[in-house]
Amino acid sequence: MKRVTAAVFGLMLIGGVSFSPAVYARSADAPAINLPSDYRDWKLISVAHEAGALNDIRAILGNDAAVAAYRSGAQTFPDGAMIVRVAWAYTPSEENNRSFGREQSFVAGAPTNIQLMIKDAEKFKATGGWGYAQFADANASNSVKDSVNQCFHCHQAVQSRDYLFTRYAR
Amino acid sequence: MKRVTAAVFGLMLIGGVSFSPAVYARSADAPAINLPSDYRDWKLISVAHEAGALNDIRAILGNDAAVAAYRSGAQTFPDGAMIVRVAWAYTPSEENNRSFGREQSFVAGAPTNIQLMIKDAEKFKATGGWGYAQFADANASNSVKDSVNQCFHCHQAVQSRDYLFTRYAR
Repeated sequence: MKRVTAAVFGLMLIGGVSFSPAVYARSADAPAINLPSDYRDWKLISVAHEAGALNDIRAILGNDAAVAAYRSGAQTFPDGAMIVRVAWAYTPSEENNRSFGREQSFVAGAPTNIQLMIKDAEKFKATGGWGYAQFADANASNSVKDSVNQCFHCHQAVQSRDYLFTRYAR
Repeated sequence: MKRVTAAVFGLMLIGGVSFSPAVYARSADAPAINLPSDYRDWKLISVAHEAGALNDIRAILGNDAAVAAYRSGAQTFPDGAMIVRVAWAYTPSEENNRSFGREQSFVAGAPTNIQLMIKDAEKFKATGGWGYAQFADANASNSVKDSVNQCFHCHQAVQSRDYLFTRYAR
């Protein structure tokens, strides 16, 4: 069951599933993570669409430190690098389809939730040097209670890229 | 035939189709449009997926003037506002799918082309105050030869939003 739980909840940065607070009680010594107020101004790293239960369209943005690391091909991201995943409901655009003359256009609908990775090799050493957080919206607090099982478990699959699934889109 | 041509080529900012240079000869007095070198640093406006022949995933970015106008709900964008559409091949991610345990993830593959709108009410008064351009890549020159028929024709459908199809994704 633990394995299933990890598989379901683990891939926070590309998953974004919700979970029951009853299952995960945040450990008393878990570092607090807040969403920086300027995240929506960060630079674009890439875009993606997740079908299935998520059914969202998303952008991955980075602060200057993260984007510089991506662009330079850094193997390890520096402390202070932050990456945010913003997502919206995957929504057909009737307006665009009328102009195209066929049903082909999908745009960002209502926002879903926001996820954040923040690099601090010492502070988050239990999870590869990254802190993981999820926010219901820009004013919400972090809902991740157990970042090892909810996030880090799946991100270990890309340890060779400093645990980052997203590749920079040039 | 003219109508069909406009319908096919018109929606440059969300369309991005190619065309034959033989069909459109740029008029001698058409203003030159270059792609600003820092476009990839601009802020995110929204994201979209175009299925069908385009089959891309895209981000729409804006310079500070454009993003400020979007965020303030401006009815008319100021001179100097610039909006760029960057797009990549819509590509399944086997890596992400392995972590999700199902085929659901689509990411940015190879870049396709880049489109630009630039506001100058006087310079581009024949096309609603916007100049339209398309670039094969960041080093290419503008390939739009007839922005009235290739671009403006379809953008007139959204004249009430200053000819912008894309809405800001909050």
